[in-house]
Amino acid sequence: MLTMWRFYPIFRCRIKFLPVQRRCIHYIKRSKLYQPVSPVMKGTDVMKKGEAISKSQQLMMTYGLLHHGALGTYYLLPLAVRSLHKLIAIIEKYMNDIGAQQIDIPNLSLAQHWKKTGRWDEMGSELFKLKDRQGKDLCLGPTQEEAIVSMVKSQLVMPEKDLPILLYQINKKFRDEPRPRYGLLRAREFLMKDLYSFNASPESATETYKLVSQAYENIFTHLGVDYKVVQASTGAMGGSLSHEFHFINDIGEDTILLCTKCNYGVNSELKGLQDSSQCANCGGDLYEKKSIEVGHTFLLGTKYTSVFNSNYINKSGKQELLHMGCFGVGVTRLLAAAVEVLSTLEDIRWPAAIAPYTVCIVPPKTGSKEFTALSLLAPLVEQLSAECHIAGDVIVDDRDDLTIGRRVLDAKHTGYPFIIVIGKNALGPDPKLEMFLVNEGQRLYVSPGDVGSLLREKIQK
Amino acid sequence: MLTMWRFYPIFRCRIKFLPVQRRCIHYIKRSKLYQPVSPVMKGTDVMKKGEAISKSQQLMMTYGLLHHGALGTYYLLPLAVRSLHKLIAIIEKYMNDIGAQQIDIPNLSLAQHWKKTGRWDEMGSELFKLKDRQGKDLCLGPTQEEAIVSMVKSQLVMPEKDLPILLYQINKKFRDEPRPRYGLLRAREFLMKDLYSFNASPESATETYKLVSQAYENIFTHLGVDYKVVQASTGAMGGSLSHEFHFINDIGEDTILLCTKCNYGVNSELKGLQDSSQCANCGGDLYEKKSIEVGHTFLLGTKYTSVFNSNYINKSGKQELLHMGCFGVGVTRLLAAAVEVLSTLEDIRWPAAIAPYTVCIVPPKTGSKEFTALSLLAPLVEQLSAECHIAGDVIVDDRDDLTIGRRVLDAKHTGYPFIIVIGKNALGPDPKLEMFLVNEGQRLYVSPGDVGSLLREKIQK
Repeated sequence: MLTMWRFYPIFRCRIKFLPVQRRCIHYIKRSKLYQPVSPVMKGTDVMKKGEAISKSQQLMMTYGLLHHGALGTYYLLPLAVRSLHKLIAIIEKYMNDIGAQQIDIPNLSLAQHWKKTGRWDEMGSELFKLKDRQGKDLCLGPTQEEAIVSMVKSQLVMPEKDLPILLYQINKKFRDEPRPRYGLLRAREFLMKDLYSFNASPESATETYKLVSQAYENIFTHLGVDYKVVQASTGAMGGSLSHEFHFINDIGEDTILLCTKCNYGVNSELKGLQDSSQCANCGGDLYEKKSIEVGHTFLLGTKYTSVFNSNYINKSGKQELLHMGCFGVGVTRLLAAAVEVLSTLEDIRWPAAIAPYTVCIVPPKTGSKEFTALSLLAPLVEQLSAECHIAGDVIVDDRDDLTIGRRVLDAKHTGYPFIIVIGKNALGPDPKLEMFLVNEGQRLYVSPGDVGSLLREKIQK
Repeated sequence: MLTMWRFYPIFRCRIKFLPVQRRCIHYIKRSKLYQPVSPVMKGTDVMKKGEAISKSQQLMMTYGLLHHGALGTYYLLPLAVRSLHKLIAIIEKYMNDIGAQQIDIPNLSLAQHWKKTGRWDEMGSELFKLKDRQGKDLCLGPTQEEAIVSMVKSQLVMPEKDLPILLYQINKKFRDEPRPRYGLLRAREFLMKDLYSFNASPESATETYKLVSQAYENIFTHLGVDYKVVQASTGAMGGSLSHEFHFINDIGEDTILLCTKCNYGVNSELKGLQDSSQCANCGGDLYEKKSIEVGHTFLLGTKYTSVFNSNYINKSGKQELLHMGCFGVGVTRLLAAAVEVLSTLEDIRWPAAIAPYTVCIVPPKTGSKEFTALSLLAPLVEQLSAECHIAGDVIVDDRDDLTIGRRVLDAKHTGYPFIIVIGKNALGPDPKLEMFLVNEGQRLYVSPGDVGSLLREKIQK
C-alpha cells in the first residue's frame, strides 16, 4: 500500500495545511530541480578514497541523489531528502501509534557518562572523540543509552503509574568505522531512529519489547520490502534478548540462518556453526543467506539504569530500578538498503511509498507534432491532485531540449514508480496517454480521463 | 494567523495522509506525556556550570521542555520537539515557496576545505576540531559555505539557464562558543536553516537576495513576533551586503539603532557611534535597542566560488564564476527567542502557530460533582477536529489526582494558546465551557456547540 501525500508547492515535503496564500503549483519542474546527473557511472573516485562501493550508492551518486563528502559521509541532494522525509514520516507514524514520544538528544555527548558505563574504552576508536576549548572530553554519540538514562535519572523519580515511557529520536549518529563502505549502508555519519523504553518490571518491559518489535514489522511491511526477523547477539549493548531485522542481499555483511519450515531465523554470529544445521524452533533444516541489518532491538533489563541508579517509585512507595529496552532503525541505511534490494544495475527502484516523487509526467516538446497535446497537462495534474491526493508529489520533465524517449529513460533511471507520457498517442479523436508502471515493469495506454482512477487504485494497493 | 494542522494519532507531528489503519485518537493525554516538571524553578545547576541563564531557558527547563546536557547543549523533550517541528514546517513552506530545494550536508567537514578559504585558522577555537582514526583533520560544521561550494564545483558545470539554484538544509550546527549562555539563544550545538544561492550575475544574485529576504520576513510575520531588519556587518563571512533580523529584547546581545521616522535600522557594530545620531535613509533621529539576532543574510559575490573555482557556463559557452548568497535562520534560537519575547516570568507564551498543542482541554475529575459533564469531552474533540482541523493537536489533561484549578495553572505555565475547561458551568440546562484565550489574556464562557466556530475564527485570525 502506498502512502498518500498532500504536498505544498514545489518542494513541500513535510507539512501541510498551512493556509494557502497563493495558488498552489501542484508539480515541480525537472528543469528547476537540482539533480546533478553524472555522464558516466560514478564509483572510481570513491574507490580511490578507499571505500568499497555498492550498487545503491553508485546509482544514487550517478543520478544526482548523493554526493560523497569526507570518508564515509554523504551529502543528500534534493531527491534523496524527499525520500528520506517520506521514510521519516512513515517511521514517525508507527512510533506515534504505539505512544512513543519524540525527543532530541545532543550529538555532543559527555565523556563522563561513557566512562561510567565503561563504553568510553569499550567502544574505543569507534567513538569520534574530541576536546572542547576548555579541554573537556566529549564524543559524538553513536547511540544514546548513557545520555537518556542520565537525563531520566536527573528528573523527579517517576511513579509506577506514569510507566511505561517510550522516548525516541531521529537524528544523526556518528561512528568512526574502521572500514566505511557501500555508501549509506556503512557510513561514519548516518541518520538513526533510536527508541528507549522504561518499564517497571521485566514482564512489562517484555510487553513493550513486543510492541515496538511489531511496530518495526509494520514499518517494513509498509515499505513492502521482504524482511526477516532473526535472533541476535546482545553484543556490546548487553541485555537478555535481542532481535535483528534484515533485508536479504548478497552485499550484506551479515549471514543469517533461516528455517526451511517455519519463520525461525538466527544471526550466524549467535549460532555457532557446529549446531547450525537444525532449527531451534521446529527442528527443520536451516539455510544461509547474506543480509543487510536494518533494525535491531534489545531488552536491556537494568544494565544501564543500575549504573546511573535510575529508578521509579513502585506502588508501595519504594524506589526500584527501571527496566529498559532500546530499539534502532538505521534510517539512511534503510533507505539505501531498500534501493540496494530493489534496483537493477542501471535503474534505481524505490518502495513506492518513499520514491522522491510518485509520478513523473513527460510532456511533448515545444514545436513537435505532439505539441498540441500539451493542453492535456494541466487537467492531468489537477486530476491526479484531486483523485489521488498527490498534489506536489508530481514532477513534470519539462526539459525542452530532450526527446521524450530520453526523458522517459531518465525517469526510469531515477525510479519514479509511475511515468505518464503525453506523446504521439495523445493526438486524434481517441487520445491515449502512455503509462509506465515502473515497479511492475508494465506499459499501458490509458484515456486521459481514466488516469486518476487507475493510479488511485495502484497507489492504494 | 495560525497554522492549521492535521495530525495523526498521539504524537503525530510531521506528516499526514498516511492511510488510517485504525481509528484515530484525536488527542493526547497529559498523563501519558513525558513532561518532567520541576518542583522549583530551575537555573541554579546551570549557573554552577558557568552558563548565564535566560527566562525562556528557565521556563522551558522548569516546565519539562528542555534538559541541560554538556555545556551549551540541550535535550529537547517531547513538547519542545513538537514546537520545533511546527517551526520547521513553517520555514520549509516559505523556503519551498521560493523554489529553494532541501539538501543535507554532513556535519563532519573536511579540514582541507576550511584551510583553502583560510577559515580553519580564522574561526580558530570556535571550530570543534577532531581527528578520525586515520589521523585526518575534521571539524563539525558551524556553517557550510566551503562544503556546498566544493560540492557544486565537483559536479558538471551548470549552464546559465539552470540558474539560479537555491539549496538549503535544516540541521545541526556546532560552534565552540567562548561563553555559551541563555540556553538555546547561544548554544554550542543548535539547529540552523542555512540557504545558499548560486546566480549568474551580481544583478540576479541581488534579486535572489531580495527574494530570500522577503521569505524571511514572511516567516517572522507568520510567527507574529515583532521583528526588525537592520543593515549589518559582513564580518568574517564576507561579501558586499548583509542584513540581520532581530527581535527586540533586553537580554539580546546586539545593539541596534532604529530610526524614529522610517523603517531604517542598523546594527551598532556597523555604524560607529560617532555618526549614529542620524538615519542614513531619511536623516531622522536614531534610538538604541538591545536585540536578539534570529536571521542573517549575506550577498557574498564570488568570495567562496573564486577559491574553489566554481563556475557556470554563460550563454556564449564561456565559464564564469558563480555569484553566491548565504542566508541563515537559527531555528532553535528563533524558537527560544520567540518564547523569550512573549513569556511572562512565570508562564511560557508561544506564537500560537508553534505552540506544542494548540488546545488544552481540562475535563472534570472522576467522582466530582461536575463529572457527568465528561460526556461533553468526546463531542468537543470531534467538533474541534472537524471545524478547526486540529485533530491530534489537542491535549487533554486527564490527570485525575489534580484539581481543575491546578491543571489550568499547569496549562497556563506551558502556554497552550487555548484552554477549555469542562467544569461546574458545564452542568444544568444551559451548559457553558470556560475558555481561556491565553495569548490575549481573556476568559469566556461559551456554549459547547459554539466552541468550534469561535476557535476557528481565532485560529484563522
